[in-house]
This record gives sequence, structure tokens and C-alpha cells, in this order.
Amino acid sequence: MSVRHDAMARSAETAPHAAAARRFARVRKLSLDLAAPLSDADATAQSMPDASPSKWHLAHTTWFFETFVLRDHVPNHRSFDGRFAFLFNSYYEAEGARIARPRRGLLTRPSLDEVRAYRAAVDAEIERVLPDLPPATLALVELGCHHEEQHQELLLTDLLHLFAQNPLTPAAYAPAARPPGAVPEPLRWVEGRAGTAEIGHSGDGFAFDCEGPRHVTWLQPHALADRLITNGEWRDFMADGGYGTASLWLADGWAWLRENGIEAPAYWRRDAAGAWSQHFGLDGLREIDLSAPVRHVSYYEADAFARWAGARLPTEAEWESAAARLDPASGNFLDAPVAACPLPARGGDGLRQMFGDVWEWTGSAYLAYPGFRPAAGAIGEYNGKFMSGQFVLRGGSCATPRGHVRASYRNFFYPHQRWQFTGVRLAKDL
Amino acid sequence: MSVRHDAMARSAETAPHAAAARRFARVRKLSLDLAAPLSDADATAQSMPDASPSKWHLAHTTWFFETFVLRDHVPNHRSFDGRFAFLFNSYYEAEGARIARPRRGLLTRPSLDEVRAYRAAVDAEIERVLPDLPPATLALVELGCHHEEQHQELLLTDLLHLFAQNPLTPAAYAPAARPPGAVPEPLRWVEGRAGTAEIGHSGDGFAFDCEGPRHVTWLQPHALADRLITNGEWRDFMADGGYGTASLWLADGWAWLRENGIEAPAYWRRDAAGAWSQHFGLDGLREIDLSAPVRHVSYYEADAFARWAGARLPTEAEWESAAARLDPASGNFLDAPVAACPLPARGGDGLRQMFGDVWEWTGSAYLAYPGFRPAAGAIGEYNGKFMSGQFVLRGGSCATPRGHVRASYRNFFYPHQRWQFTGVRLAKDL
Amino acid sequence: MSVRHDAMARSAETAPHAAAARRFARVRKLSLDLAAPLSDADATAQSMPDASPSKWHLAHTTWFFETFVLRDHVPNHRSFDGRFAFLFNSYYEAEGARIARPRRGLLTRPSLDEVRAYRAAVDAEIERVLPDLPPATLALVELGCHHEEQHQELLLTDLLHLFAQNPLTPAAYAPAARPPGAVPEPLRWVEGRAGTAEIGHSGDGFAFDCEGPRHVTWLQPHALADRLITNGEWRDFMADGGYGTASLWLADGWAWLRENGIEAPAYWRRDAAGAWSQHFGLDGLREIDLSAPVRHVSYYEADAFARWAGARLPTEAEWESAAARLDPASGNFLDAPVAACPLPARGGDGLRQMFGDVWEWTGSAYLAYPGFRPAAGAIGEYNGKFMSGQFVLRGGSCATPRGHVRASYRNFFYPHQRWQFTGVRLAKDL
Amino acid sequence: MSVRHDAMARSAETAPHAAAARRFARVRKLSLDLAAPLSDADATAQSMPDASPSKWHLAHTTWFFETFVLRDHVPNHRSFDGRFAFLFNSYYEAEGARIARPRRGLLTRPSLDEVRAYRAAVDAEIERVLPDLPPATLALVELGCHHEEQHQELLLTDLLHLFAQNPLTPAAYAPAARPPGAVPEPLRWVEGRAGTAEIGHSGDGFAFDCEGPRHVTWLQPHALADRLITNGEWRDFMADGGYGTASLWLADGWAWLRENGIEAPAYWRRDAAGAWSQHFGLDGLREIDLSAPVRHVSYYEADAFARWAGARLPTEAEWESAAARLDPASGNFLDAPVAACPLPARGGDGLRQMFGDVWEWTGSAYLAYPGFRPAAGAIGEYNGKFMSGQFVLRGGSCATPRGHVRASYRNFFYPHQRWQFTGVRLAKDL
Repeated sequence: MSVRHDAMARSAETAPHAAAARRFARVRKLSLDLAAPLSDADATAQSMPDASPSKWHLAHTTWFFETFVLRDHVPNHRSFDGRFAFLFNSYYEAEGARIARPRRGLLTRPSLDEVRAYRAAVDAEIERVLPDLPPATLALVELGCHHEEQHQELLLTDLLHLFAQNPLTPAAYAPAARPPGAVPEPLRWVEGRAGTAEIGHSGDGFAFDCEGPRHVTWLQPHALADRLITNGEWRDFMADGGYGTASLWLADGWAWLRENGIEAPAYWRRDAAGAWSQHFGLDGLREIDLSAPVRHVSYYEADAFARWAGARLPTEAEWESAAARLDPASGNFLDAPVAACPLPARGGDGLRQMFGDVWEWTGSAYLAYPGFRPAAGAIGEYNGKFMSGQFVLRGGSCATPRGHVRASYRNFFYPHQRWQFTGVRLAKDL
Repeated sequence: MSVRHDAMARSAETAPHAAAARRFARVRKLSLDLAAPLSDADATAQSMPDASPSKWHLAHTTWFFETFVLRDHVPNHRSFDGRFAFLFNSYYEAEGARIARPRRGLLTRPSLDEVRAYRAAVDAEIERVLPDLPPATLALVELGCHHEEQHQELLLTDLLHLFAQNPLTPAAYAPAARPPGAVPEPLRWVEGRAGTAEIGHSGDGFAFDCEGPRHVTWLQPHALADRLITNGEWRDFMADGGYGTASLWLADGWAWLRENGIEAPAYWRRDAAGAWSQHFGLDGLREIDLSAPVRHVSYYEADAFARWAGARLPTEAEWESAAARLDPASGNFLDAPVAACPLPARGGDGLRQMFGDVWEWTGSAYLAYPGFRPAAGAIGEYNGKFMSGQFVLRGGSCATPRGHVRASYRNFFYPHQRWQFTGVRLAKDL
Repeated sequence: MSVRHDAMARSAETAPHAAAARRFARVRKLSLDLAAPLSDADATAQSMPDASPSKWHLAHTTWFFETFVLRDHVPNHRSFDGRFAFLFNSYYEAEGARIARPRRGLLTRPSLDEVRAYRAAVDAEIERVLPDLPPATLALVELGCHHEEQHQELLLTDLLHLFAQNPLTPAAYAPAARPPGAVPEPLRWVEGRAGTAEIGHSGDGFAFDCEGPRHVTWLQPHALADRLITNGEWRDFMADGGYGTASLWLADGWAWLRENGIEAPAYWRRDAAGAWSQHFGLDGLREIDLSAPVRHVSYYEADAFARWAGARLPTEAEWESAAARLDPASGNFLDAPVAACPLPARGGDGLRQMFGDVWEWTGSAYLAYPGFRPAAGAIGEYNGKFMSGQFVLRGGSCATPRGHVRASYRNFFYPHQRWQFTGVRLAKDL
Repeated sequence: MSVRHDAMARSAETAPHAAAARRFARVRKLSLDLAAPLSDADATAQSMPDASPSKWHLAHTTWFFETFVLRDHVPNHRSFDGRFAFLFNSYYEAEGARIARPRRGLLTRPSLDEVRAYRAAVDAEIERVLPDLPPATLALVELGCHHEEQHQELLLTDLLHLFAQNPLTPAAYAPAARPPGAVPEPLRWVEGRAGTAEIGHSGDGFAFDCEGPRHVTWLQPHALADRLITNGEWRDFMADGGYGTASLWLADGWAWLRENGIEAPAYWRRDAAGAWSQHFGLDGLREIDLSAPVRHVSYYEADAFARWAGARLPTEAEWESAAARLDPASGNFLDAPVAACPLPARGGDGLRQMFGDVWEWTGSAYLAYPGFRPAAGAIGEYNGKFMSGQFVLRGGSCATPRGHVRASYRNFFYPHQRWQFTGVRLAKDL
């Protein structure tokens, strides 16, 4: 996602310089902490074109600060290495040629240590100039922090994909602390607002351009499930022949399933007896926790599951309307370098797991809001550039840095992609 | 499109049997008329996986009547040839195995004459039983007629694609009669309705399942262009470097353009001097009429053009809200086997060319309306099956049989597809 | 093969003009006879890039006469249709641009009847000028006849491949007359010549450039099987797990087998009980004759079979050395438009089935003979152009026009190709 | 090549145990020396399916000793890590499942250090048991050394390919010492032996199975060029339009050239002025030495060059017959971890550069010699397995460990491959 959210903030915090400096330091440190257990090789390999090497994430986020803050706004800045723009630009056409994305994994040089040195040099320079930056430039630092948080999540999911290819099933991190498991109660429905509703970002806080403008929409009578779909419920779907029943699937989804031999969520593994009892995660190969939310399912799978369940996926407006009342920083998010993992719903009433745990597929295509205008210039190779063929996901995941998402936050992926922590919340018409 | 619209009518005409019989005869005859100038070879070849041979269209539409009317509802019906289900089923999973779509062009047998004999036999049987059919079965005949009209359009566009591959530039049909050309007046804006609006089909007439249910939506203040974009305006876009400016394009569109070397609308050809002065149509190779609407552009191109023009594409709700007041049978539609061709806008005020001429790309993804429920059974391998990755087009084209479309009619294609008569109407926020 | 043998004769017959005229008429008539049962559609479709439409073969062979005889050697010749060079040139780079090979099947125009008219016009002109042609030009007519015989065989094998795709299993021709089947006697070995031997063409008769120069080679002590491998023996190989035993296969062959799911010779079909009891031929779907030679096997299969049998394939020198004593016109060859089909070996002693029935894979790569020099000019886009990656086949097949092959004749295909009538004769070291 | 030469020695040295131990130690040390400058990431990445990571080479050669010596012949051997067989088996079908070749670059674990530990453990065990090994097992150690020498060359060429993808143009090793450059004298012809000649290995020394049996062959009168083709001569070929002249190329070669945009040997680079003045090597980006032999050309290029020069490539029999009189250990071979690089021919008469510098493409397909029999068992997944579609190369290169090749040594690659140090020696008929 961050690969695409590199975009102009609609409106930036008016935080004082000290707060910006603290936030900058904290964000930059978390990236290094996430990379700490990685070898040079771990940080270099690329397991598919959609994914990038950890080292690349570490360098690209640094290039972002160096380019859009230091190069553009600090007089006499000398670039750390003039060749890095070619290596570490992601997709900014306005910033010139760059290495083809599927070839990022061939960059064994610069080494991980050299990239760390690059980070240190840029950090020192940012910290030096930050106290004197004018507000518009300070907003770019803020944007760079949000951008880096997106790459932190991608670093984890790309690393998970890489390690999943290794027959040695390496664990990237220690298991996350986990509250004693409770079997989730049966799913209940929570009625949503109907009629006109406003969605989209407005106000002072940071947001990406695609989150606005805030606008009126119309909601039909509907309800949302009070919690996420669990691995146990997914196993019921599988046991009922869900992956073998054409009538449950979108045509494109059925073709995808057939072509790729899809039989279960990504990273599920059969045990010696042939049962789907294990899955691979950032803490290695583990028993599947039937109470925890299902993760790593594609839109096609989410949609088929919903049809099987006699329900549907929420629209993004339904989701946002419900989420607006909740605390976006309160869920199961990423705080430290441990193995991110969604957790079972806690007991209680009302909507739970709306923020964190897994990104929730909505039935809404990722398109421009009414009145949407992207920012100008390279930095505004706006989110709008990706507005075809993708679906919106909401709420963040266990691999999203805490504080990164909002009720208005729009993530988006192609319907076949599932290497992110993606899951399912059901909705229905009333 | 008909390949996908094969769906249950939400609500069928209560026409008397005589009217149904007249309509059946008229529709079936037009298909034969369209095929009249074709050789056996013309009717057999398949120029790409997206297209089907003419012969296949003629046989598949017949198979539809034979299967869903005669086999399912007429006692003791004997199938014309038991092997035809394998050959002429399109995509109905519930109807069993079928020949792979890209291999339809290898069916040199049965011959075109044998397919005509198949049509004649099924027609005779339908005509024999029709007077006594109960309403629900009569509705299936009506559905079959709408289904066949969709295939008539595909027959023309697939044939156009086939002939466009032939260096001999064969003309399939005589040129359509064409009013003396007027240079269109400058484009003007027509303000649309804002606030709540109802869209979607309801009532007695025929409609495909995806057109309903009728529901409330919310429209932002906006205006629609009063006419379609012309070839001349498209040439301005090209002259201004439109196909070479990355910032105008969606990321997927830019990748598509680069990979396929796209420089102009489909079927445009350079003359000996290198100028894009000709295009290939159902009447062969012709000079481009700069006053006529541009045709055969993809969503990516339509979207890039709109961005270049400082505008955007309409939403389907905006389009339908405006079209609801107009006569859907009054435009430039297909009436007879002549070379379908969009025409310049007539003079005058207000919205013109809303129906007919070219399908208009909207900025709306093809998704379910609130409360959408597909029909049950094989015939309900509903339109919903295609609800991912595609965009909605509205209004019909010069290759659409007159009377086939409605204000609520939703056509849909992938954003790279452009072998249909597809064009552009602009919209803007107010 | 003819697609590649279009080459300069090393030495052409000094036949009188009358003989050349008779031969020209006979060859040209056989092509039309072979095409007689075909519809326009049958003659237009192309089932794979390696194959060409029948219509294309009919036109290309005509283009060859028109170009290299009439255009180049007859003053004031007016081309029949100036656009045909683009359509019907095969691969002569020196003759300019041409339609991409995999797109030949999209040429629904010109029609089969128009191609017949093209043939008639060129034939009339050739017949008019032939009596006065100087010897060098007469040699080009002779070359054109050999060229056309190659395309006659390809027409049959390409047609067989096309019809094999059709679930209706159409028969192209009536079954060939077939002597009462005898069960072949056990395979016996016939010792070959050892030490120096001369191979390659020399002398007055026609030959393609790659058949010469005649030269000395050295043969190790060896023996050849006295007959071809039968379908029954192939079934033994299959029953013994031949297609599932990696150690029998070349690495490239094993990869080919796995990727394409190869389990049996091309055109073999399982019956309802799952047994490989039928195969598809020019006379439609038939029971496999266990006494007849196996046909439609690739080099990979032939090589694996030989290894399984504890033997090997012959070298081309071994084969030619043995064949030089036999009558090349005496085997089971194509004489008329009936369904070509290899026949069981007749009883008796010594080498049988050396000519006709099936092309015999040799273990020799198709490479230049010592001292090989291709002819100059377009017509000499010599066989040498294909001298990498292919293996030599010898002896002709039941689909080769009688009189076309010689002991020195070298056919060649890639090791995975098997749509020709290709089979196996074993050899062993002594 | 070693990826394929892992085969049974026909005949092994009867060296005493001490000599075997010295050789084992020397070979194993050179591999480590070659890997010494590599980072963990350098040793892990894989730049194309044909290449393998350095780490993989280091581990696979170790697995070979562990499997075929320790596991098979040392009682109670405990495997170092039971999972390594899956990771480090190359292609031995008899040894079971293994990781897909194109995925070797995803094995970031085990690390390079862990692989070094694996090497150390196996080395210690081999050294412990070696003094008591019976001759047949000692022969396997010898085979393992030859096998490892093949992988040393691949390690270098695979590494070169990897570094060539890196825009930073890293140098893997220090430049090799290079004698002061002399401009080679004009190429002269050295007449070869004609009539019968014996080629192939026999006698006591080590050889791979495909080098035998020794057998008689027949040589036509011919001559070989006295030295290799230089970069300067190759530039003449380019300047004369060699890469743009279809008539010089094999059909498959021309298709390869067009599809891949080939304009020069691999690793040649244009300078800022557009001239082909630089090439990339194990010592980074350097000026092209016009006096040195051209390197990294495919068979297609070698063959086209020879045709342009009015000559041809030698046959392997011609080459071997000439080389049999020369010292195979005397050329420009690999002795130490410096940047392998072919050198200009020294002055003098007679054949020079026959051994070392670059592998010389022959015009001979890689096929079995008369009477060839592969060894039995897994270790005999013989060279014969690769006997289709490839051409023979002779003489070794600057990246081949000194002492590895013989006059009878047959290397082989597909005609498009050129990441080895491959070059050209001309031949002609007399």
C-alpha cells in the first residue's frame, strides 16, 4: 500500500517542531528495529514482483526524505549517492528512470549496512534542519513519516512472503504476546445508519489525498457483523466445498482459483495427515487458531465466503459511517518488532475488531470521491493513479503501525492479492 | 456483452402471444440478415479470445432457446444434435463442460449452412409451441430475444475485429446512409440534478437482473457535456502528446499503453504520409470523419482524455438520471445489415447522442446495486458473476439493435477493452 | 517440412519439356484433389502456429511458381494480385514483409474459390510458357513441383491437426484400402555396413541442397531393426510405465512431457473405459491397429522408447547406407486423396518399411554436410537456415507423395514435434 | 556445465590416498577463496533461472560428497541437516524432490556462514575417512572434485551475470595480471588431419562418461584458424551490419536476436557517446580490449560471424584431433580468485589459445558417441540426459580451473546461451 500512498497530505498537522522531531525519530527507529533480526541476504531477496526487499523499503523511505525535503528545500544539499535515485525511486514518473520493480531483488549492493549508513546520514541531516523548517516543509516531513509507516507494513508482509518460500520455515520474530484464547461468541448483527451520511476526511489532521473531499452519500438500511470471520468459520466454508463450488465465485475469481490451484487462504499448510491444520506466519509454522480472524484471503475469497454465508461485504461508506464513532488507535496494531498476528475478538457487545487485526475487504471499488483533485508535482503522483481494478480495504491490521490509520483511511489492492493481512467482516441488507 | 447478460429478466412483458411471436421472428431474422454477406470461413474464424465466430453467435443464441425453452419446458423435445451443448454453451457452469473459449475458431464443422439448418429447426419448433406457452416460459422467449440482440452487437464487433486483421481490408457491409456532415458546435455543459435521485429499473418492462433494484442515490452538483467527443477533438489530444504524457494516465493504463504500443484509438491507421487519417470499419478502410464521435477507445484512454480536458467521466447515476427523460429508441441504432457507424451530433440545444452512436464509458465500477439478488438456476448465472474489475458503459451504440437499451441498461467491459463501439462523454463538478 | 525445403536444387533433371509439363499438371492436380472435400472454413482455419491453413498451402505453392518462374523469368508478367506476396510468402526474408505465421488462419478472404482461381490463372500461364523455357528456368518449375509435394504432405498433417481439435471428430477422407492385417513377426536385426561409407546426394537427379555434397563417413558396427515399431509394442512400453519413468527420458523430453501432460502418442484417445484403444486419423476416430506402425511420436518419445528397449535410434548415415540399395518409390506413399495411414509390415526377410509408412527419427542432429554451400538469392534461403536444434528423419511417410523421397532425403523437425506421421525404427551397436 | 556433468567417471585415477587428499583439500579451498569477497546477499541472489547463487554452488558440491561418499559408503554417517537434500540436490531425479531451480535465490537461510560450516563439517569427515576408502569410493571423491571444479566456473559466470544487473557495476575481484598487450597478427590457417582419426577418451585418466568411448571418425580436408577471433574483429562484424543482416543467421538465431534486441555480445555496453566501447567483467566496467578474444557470444552469433567471414565453425572431431597434440594445462586458466579474463594471443606460429581463454563453439551437436553407455544409478544421471538441442564447446576458458579440461572434454550449451566465457575459432574446408 505505501508503495501507492506516497502522496500529498490534504492537510497537515500544525504540530510544533519538537513534536515533529519526536515523531520522526520514533518512526525511523521502528524501521530499524523491524530490520534488526534480518541478515543481509534476508533484506535483499525479493520473492515476487509485488513485493520488495526489506533493504529496498529502508532505502526508499530514506530517498523520499532526501528528495522531497533535503534536495527540494535545503540549500546546498549534497546527495548521499547520486545513483540511489535510480535504485530507490518507486514509481514517480516525474522523478525519472528507475530500476524495474521485479529486479529489485538483484541489488546485492549496496549492502544492508550501507543502507543503514544512508539512513543515518539522512536522519542526521533532517534532524539538523528540522527546527528551522517552514510549515510547508515540515508537512513534508510529516508526510514522509506516514509514507514510512506504510512501508513498515509492507516490509513485514513482503518478508512473510519471502520466508514462506523457504522450506526451512524460518521465524522472523518472536511470537506476539497473546491473551488466553476465548471461543468467539456467535456472530451478531449491528444495524447501521441509513439515509444520508457524510464520509471522507476533513479537518486538521493528516490524511492522504484520496480520503477526501468529505461528501454526502446515501446509505441503504443495513447491518454489519459485530466481529471478523474466524479461521474456524473459514474451515466450515472449506468443509462445505466452498473452494469447489463455481456458483459462489465471481467469474474472474473462479478463473484465478483454477489457474493457481487455490484451496485455502495463503500460508495455510496441510499437516502430514493432509488436514489444513497449520499456517505460516512471522513466527514460523504454527497451529491454526480457530478463534482468530482468518487472514490472507483475497477479495475473490472474501466475496465467495460472503455469498456462501448468505451475506455480502460492507461498502466503504457503511464501514466508515460505523467506524467514525470508534477510537482508531485502540485495536491490535504494530507497536514493536514482534510477530504481528490477529487476535480473537474479545467478549462484549457492539462492533469489535473494526481497527487493527486484519484489513477488511469492502465491496467498493477504489475510485475517486466526488470533487477529488490530486496534488500537483512529483509528490502528487497521486493515489488517483491507481483508481482502476482495485477494491477498498478498511481499518488497518496487526501489521499496521499504531496511529497510522483513521476511519477515513482507504487502502486498496487488486482482488487476487492476499499477501497482506486481509480478512472479512460481513454485512447484510435490512 | 451478451456473453454476460444472459440473465433472468427481473420482470417480463405481459405481451400477448402474438406480439411475442412477431418479436421472436423479427429478432431471429435480423441475425440471419447480418450473417448473409458472410462466407463459411468468415463465419468460422476467431481473431482473439475475447471474440467469437459469427457462426458461434448464431448457434449459441439458438442453443439458448433450445435449452431453456424447449428442453426445459416442452415435453418430449428431442435435441437437434446432442453434441451441440458442448460446442455452443457459452459459460453456464451449471450446464456442464464446454469447448474452451479461445478454441471456438477451430470449429470448421458444423458449417454455416448446418447452423442455419439448426436455427430453422429450433425456430419452427418455438413457433409451433409458442401460442400455448404459459407466461413464465413466454418470459424466457422474451429473455432469449434480448439475449440474441446482445449477440447481434457482438457479432458485428467481433466481425469488425476479424476483418481488421486482414491486409485486404474487406468491407463487411455497405456504408450506412449518412446525413450531410455538420461541424459540431463547441461543447456545452448541461447541469444535472443534485441531491437524492432514484436509479435502477422498476416496473413492468423487461430488464436484466443487474439493472435493479431501483434505489436512492446521492448526486453531487455536476454537469454533463451536451454531446460526445469527436474524432477531431481526439486528434487534438493526440497532437498535444496525450499518448506520451504519463501524468494523464492511470498506472494500469500507462502500463497497457506501453506494453501494447498504443498510439491511437483501435482501427485508426496511418496513411502513406504517416498521418492518422484513416480508420477501419464495417465498410472497410475510410477517411476519418472529424465531426463524428470517436469510437473504439478504452476506459484508460477515455479517462486520460477527460483528465487532459480538465474534466472527468460521468458516474452511471449522473448519466441515468439525465437519460431518464429521453427516448431510448430514438438514437443512431442498428436497424438493418448496413455498416454501423456513429454520426456527428445534430444541431440544437440540450443533451444529444445519449442513446446510440457509441457506448459511453462511465467512471463507475460495475458492481451490485444495493439489495441485488441474482436469479436461481443455470439461467441465473447472473450478471453478478462479472462484478469485479470492469467499468459500466451506458446508452448503447450504432451496433446495438434499436429498442434493446433503456436508461437503466448497464453494459460493462474491462478498462483495456475497446473492440466495441465505445466513446466518451465528459462530465464536471459544479 | 516443405516450409523449409523451399530451396535450390543442387542439380535438376534434364527432362524434356513434355515430361516437365506432365509432371507439373499431375502435381498441381493432386493438390486440388486433396482440397476437394474441404469447405471454405476447413481450408481457412489454423489450429496452431506450426500448422498452416489448407488454403494457404494452395496459394503459397502457387505464389512460388508465380514469383520465381513467372515474375523472375517471363517478360511482362502481370501479377495476379499484388497483395498476395504479403499474404503467401512463407519465410523468404529477401522477398520482404509477410503476414505473421500464427495469423494465417485469420485470412478468411481470399476465399477458397478465389485461391482456386489464382491457381488456375498461374497454371494456365505456366503451361503457356513452359514449352519455351530455358533449362535453368525449367529447373525452377521442377523445384516448384518438389516444393508443392512437400506442402501436400503438410496440408494433410495440418488438416489432421485441425480436425483433431473438433469434438465432432470429422473424417477428412475415406479410409485407405488396407490389406488383411497380419500380426508382425518378432523384430529381427539386420547387420549394416561398417567402416567407410559414402552418403549424400550426387548425380543427375533432383535433390535439395542439404542432401549434399556426397561425402565419406565412418560407420561403426551396427544393426538395424528389420521393421518399424508397432502400436502393440508401444502399448507395452506404456503398460510398463514408460511415460512415468524419468530415467528413460532426455531432460528436455521429461520437462516437455510434464508440462504438456503427455501420456501417449498424439491423437491416441481413451475409450469410455479409460483404455487407450482409439486414435484419430484422416478417416476420423478408429480403433488402434496394434499391428500397424506407431505414428505421431516425438523424438523425445522415440528416444525414450529405444532406451526402454535396450536399443537406440539409427544415425542418418546408417539409415542411408542401408536404404541406398532399396527402391524409394515402392513403399506405402500418398497416391490419391484417401486417408493416409501406415500399414503393418508384410512378411518376409530383410529390411522392410524403410520407405513410406512413417518418417523415421534418427539420432542425428540436422546439420550441414562437410562442404555444404547454400544457393544464392531468395530461393536459396536455404535449408541451412534451419540447422540448429532439429533432428533428421528419413524415408518418407504414407502422407508423402509417391516419388518425392530418395535415400539421401533429409527431413527435420524439432524433438517435441509430432504432428507429422513420425515413427520409430530401432538400431543397435554390434 | 557442472550442473550437468555430475556423472560417473568412466575410469578413475589410481592415485594413492595421499594424492587424493591433497587434491581434495586444494579444490575445496579454491571454492572458499572464490567466495571470500562475497557478502551473504551476493552469495544468495539468483539473476536468472539458468544461474544459481554462489551459496548454492558451495552447498550443492558439499551435498554431492556427503551423499555419494559419506551417506552411501560410510557406515553410520549422520547427515548434517536432513533438509539440505531438498535444498541442494540439483537435478538427480533418483534422489527425490528438490526446490525448483528458479527459486534457489529465495533461500536466504541457511546463511553463507552456515553453508561454510556445512562445508567444514563434511570436509572434516571426508578427510577422516579418506585414508581408508577402497578404490571405488576414492574414485567418487575424485569425481566430486571434478564436479566441484565445474561448479567453480559456474560460480564465477553466475556471479558475473548477477553483478551485471546492478547499476552500481560492482567488481567481484581484482583485475588479473595482464601481459603488455600485443596486437594479434592476421589470422592464419593451420591444416588439420584428414581421413580416419580417433577421438574420445580412453586410458587411465579421469573423464566424464560422455567423452567416450574412443572411436574412429572420418575427417574431411580442413584447416583451423591459428587463434581466436578478437573483439576488434567482432567490432568489424558489427560495423558491417552483422546484427542486422538476416541472411547471415540461422532462423532460430534471427528470431532470438529480434525478440531479445541483441546488438552485441553479452556485457558489452555503450558509452555516453553511443559507442560500444566498454564491457562488464568480474573486475567491473572496463574498456574493451580489441586485441583480446571476444567472449560471451552465443552459438547463433558465432555461427553468423563465421558465415560473414566466409568460414565455418570447427567440428568437435576436427578440434580434438588438433588439440590432442597440445598440453591441456598450459593455457589461460583459473588459478586463484582474480577476475578471469581472456588474453590476446601471444605471437608465434601454429595453433594458439586452444586451451583456456574462452570455450570454443563447435558446429557439432552434443550427442552420444558410438557405443556410449551411461553409468547406472543416481550418480549416472548421465550427461546423456542432455543430449538434445545443445552444441559442443571445447577447450575450457579463463574461468575453468587449471587442470580440469582435456582434449576429449566436451562442454555443451544451448545455442542462445552466452553467460559463459564463450568465443569463436574459425575453420574452413580445404
